[in-house]
Amino acid sequence: MASEPLVVGVDFGTLSGRAVVVRVRDGAELGTAVHEYRHGVLDRALPDGRPLPPDWALQVPQDYVDVLKNAVPAAVAAAGADPADVIGIGTDFTACTMVPVKADGTPLNELPEFAGEPHAYVKLWKHHAAQGQADRINALAERRGESWLPRYGGLISSEWEFAKGLQLLEEAPAVYAAMDHWVEAADWIVWQLSGTYSRNACTAGYKGIYQDGYPSPEFLKELNPDFAGFVADKLDHPLGRLGDKAGTLTAEAAAWTGLPEGIAVAVGNVDAHVTAPAARAVEPGQMVAIMGTSTCHVMNGDVLREVPGMCGVVEGGIVPGLWGYESGQSGVGDIFAWFVDHGVPPEYHERARERGISVHELLTELAAEQRIGEHGLIALDWHSGNRSVLVDHELSGLVIGQTLATRAEDTYRALLEATAYGTRVIIDSYTDAGVPVTELVIAGGLVKNALLMQIYADVLDMPLSVIGSEQGPALGSAMHAAVAAGAYPDIRAAAGAMGSVERGVYQPIPGNVEVYERLFVEYQELHDHFGRGANEVMHRLKALRRAAKGEK
Amino acid sequence: MASEPLVVGVDFGTLSGRAVVVRVRDGAELGTAVHEYRHGVLDRALPDGRPLPPDWALQVPQDYVDVLKNAVPAAVAAAGADPADVIGIGTDFTACTMVPVKADGTPLNELPEFAGEPHAYVKLWKHHAAQGQADRINALAERRGESWLPRYGGLISSEWEFAKGLQLLEEAPAVYAAMDHWVEAADWIVWQLSGTYSRNACTAGYKGIYQDGYPSPEFLKELNPDFAGFVADKLDHPLGRLGDKAGTLTAEAAAWTGLPEGIAVAVGNVDAHVTAPAARAVEPGQMVAIMGTSTCHVMNGDVLREVPGMCGVVEGGIVPGLWGYESGQSGVGDIFAWFVDHGVPPEYHERARERGISVHELLTELAAEQRIGEHGLIALDWHSGNRSVLVDHELSGLVIGQTLATRAEDTYRALLEATAYGTRVIIDSYTDAGVPVTELVIAGGLVKNALLMQIYADVLDMPLSVIGSEQGPALGSAMHAAVAAGAYPDIRAAAGAMGSVERGVYQPIPGNVEVYERLFVEYQELHDHFGRGANEVMHRLKALRRAAKGEK
Repeated sequence: MASEPLVVGVDFGTLSGRAVVVRVRDGAELGTAVHEYRHGVLDRALPDGRPLPPDWALQVPQDYVDVLKNAVPAAVAAAGADPADVIGIGTDFTACTMVPVKADGTPLNELPEFAGEPHAYVKLWKHHAAQGQADRINALAERRGESWLPRYGGLISSEWEFAKGLQLLEEAPAVYAAMDHWVEAADWIVWQLSGTYSRNACTAGYKGIYQDGYPSPEFLKELNPDFAGFVADKLDHPLGRLGDKAGTLTAEAAAWTGLPEGIAVAVGNVDAHVTAPAARAVEPGQMVAIMGTSTCHVMNGDVLREVPGMCGVVEGGIVPGLWGYESGQSGVGDIFAWFVDHGVPPEYHERARERGISVHELLTELAAEQRIGEHGLIALDWHSGNRSVLVDHELSGLVIGQTLATRAEDTYRALLEATAYGTRVIIDSYTDAGVPVTELVIAGGLVKNALLMQIYADVLDMPLSVIGSEQGPALGSAMHAAVAAGAYPDIRAAAGAMGSVERGVYQPIPGNVEVYERLFVEYQELHDHFGRGANEVMHRLKALRRAAKGEK
Repeated sequence: MASEPLVVGVDFGTLSGRAVVVRVRDGAELGTAVHEYRHGVLDRALPDGRPLPPDWALQVPQDYVDVLKNAVPAAVAAAGADPADVIGIGTDFTACTMVPVKADGTPLNELPEFAGEPHAYVKLWKHHAAQGQADRINALAERRGESWLPRYGGLISSEWEFAKGLQLLEEAPAVYAAMDHWVEAADWIVWQLSGTYSRNACTAGYKGIYQDGYPSPEFLKELNPDFAGFVADKLDHPLGRLGDKAGTLTAEAAAWTGLPEGIAVAVGNVDAHVTAPAARAVEPGQMVAIMGTSTCHVMNGDVLREVPGMCGVVEGGIVPGLWGYESGQSGVGDIFAWFVDHGVPPEYHERARERGISVHELLTELAAEQRIGEHGLIALDWHSGNRSVLVDHELSGLVIGQTLATRAEDTYRALLEATAYGTRVIIDSYTDAGVPVTELVIAGGLVKNALLMQIYADVLDMPLSVIGSEQGPALGSAMHAAVAAGAYPDIRAAAGAMGSVERGVYQPIPGNVEVYERLFVEYQELHDHFGRGANEVMHRLKALRRAAKGEK
């Protein structure tokens, strides 16, 4: 094989990291490898056994370095590639995942005095113990009319940099005082590769409330007087544009990875956002839905609009020069999984086992035999609350229309459909806000369910494009490496050459569209009735539930 | 054992008949026996194999006679009784179950020319193929403002005498023409015992629209010109009061049963209504809820009131001299059974099997461990529609509040609670209409579920009384036999001596009552929103379902 320029992309997920070796010329994925984090997610105890409170989720930074040491060389070996051909490395990460570090980047948990201190560890995206802080941030921002609040659909998440930082200050002031930087893991890993701290524009905007500047010291002071200097002391740092070179691979990182010292290291990025160029969706109006346990929707726009209930809009948040929009559905695949685990009787499990297929596959097969509307059900897909467009985590699921003839495949199909209606509400919200969605590209694990895809095409009355890669984030990271290495002038060009998408894979069927139009009207009415204040029964049920369980 | 007067009660159910031998003095149940109908329910084909359309449900009259021949002697034998001590026999039947007969009582299906004709057979209560006729009856009655319509909560059921009779006329005019009487099975069996046709006041009122007279010939003519003479030609017959003697046991029936010729045969009755005296609930305000797959509520009142959504109010319909009220919940135990069959994952089935208990028992046990409100759910118990108080069979079930943490026992408990809320709506409707419910007595199979009973006591904020007999209808029939035989002056006296009830078995717990009060407010709001026209989504989903299935 003739020597050709290659790049490496590394996708850091919740439980493992995946490296992929990609040919710069055409994006061909030559080899891949996965390395699981030794400590996984610390949600019950620290490595030394010290127990953690509910809703905590920590990680150990060295586990990320182990991915560089293991998965990268393994991927190069799997590709049968000469490491000398690799001209750059790019990474993407879960977000918002935060590392408290000293000035040289050393994580605080690696200091002997903090080894037993939970707050010295990485707070993973799904660390949900800062809800009280988030509530205060939101209430204060609303009261003060902070201009940045609408950029986040009116809600700053407990998962993000400020809520987690405020929790750190208030629960472990000594750790907070010892911390020189509050760093996104997406940037910390780049720091390890390049020896340079570069704060990426994506997480700074989506998770760090950076909108031509951060929340003011006055705002922070009102939250907590000791928090007034948070931005200046812990957070602020020059921003790196996506696709820029953060630096070059250090000798140490070259030794870890087996890659040549001095190659380009791209500015860090986020798994969902980096998928957009991998799917060649870099033009305004091209929305990518990354569908897994939840769904993340990312799209570029050439105008700034306040889209109701979006997770955020960030200039250069996906591609430099455009406004990057993000929305989300809190529960999608996890609702289907919950139903399969907790709502399907034994016969189905037995039949699936006999046929050597999953219960999901069996239910999908049975549901696919139905005509639209035949099950007589409508569901609301709010089992994990609703991010977009209602921004209300106290909402819950609903199924209406059950009779004694209702069977498991009926409810399963109704849940599939409910998530499609939820996506339609989001897409409509963009169009109504003046940022029309012209194409929808599906990525993520659920793309494999053909029935689900056809339902989405029919409910949305849009053809669906499908990403060509099964490892979209890692491919996207590799593309950023290629741009950082100068192989392409910008991400658009890299996306054109290295990204892959199949267009029009699922086409709306007119007869189906018509029936779903009627069902969507029903969904919308239930959505608005239970989601917009006409009947706040879901809130009251959650409050009653907490009271019954003796919670606050 | 000293010779003492005895009576026999026979309860004719959907699949079998049960005889019980009862001591007149104190109602002691000395022996019982069950005989299953040889042909069961004909809902797919006639005995000769001729297929039946959907929604049909027929029976064979000789199966009822076989109960007299088998179960009665077996019960006497089981009691170790001397048949000579038996002074009377009483019966109760499913209703409305109709037999087309010749002038001598011969069922038309026994005539050779009609043996292959479905319309010549007994139309069982759950024969639902006359819905079109019922719809026309209701529409016309409403348009004409017929005074009897409000006595039935505004809806004549497709199960009742007129709808089934009109279907017979319109689909099989020759059978209709050959029929001399359209007879309730409750009266036909009495005819077989006594040789006398006596039409009982209970079914005439509740199922035959008798309210000081029947619907007028003008009304009937407007339905169908050939139906104008229906009442005069086929239905009208002197009424027998409940507890009266219809006649005496014929020689032939004495030979079938082994009982003495000439003993009293009581006027026929209905299973639910005959349970009231068996539970000693014969005074105004004492409501009996017979809780099984569905729930039937019967209560006497000393005033005539129009209670919303009741099934009927009939003078002397339960006890002569009082107004007998009836309401109903279309689905109760069958909703729980549906959930166990179609919504519970394998682990629960395995655990129940390992412990040698039913899945119902396991779920009840798990649900009983919860605090009220802990599951965070509210359900509407309309899986089979809603009879009282909404009178709308197009309604359907709803569950709200589901999260990824929802488990089978949560939904199960929510369904139990939903039926309790449904009962409360009914009881409130009586109180609001000026017929207050002062005591609730529970009968039927569900009385065994202590959690369900406590939930009812808490939701209703009423102590629950429980019937003392496990075979309430048969005992009630035996009491009617005792009155017919002159052993007691009236049913009240018989109820006092022979009936049995344990009062205050379940007491409302103040803390529970308080939480359920809040949950009931939520139920009521959902009930009214989806049941009273604010959002008719359930109707539209049913229509869509029919359209999808290619039905009308």
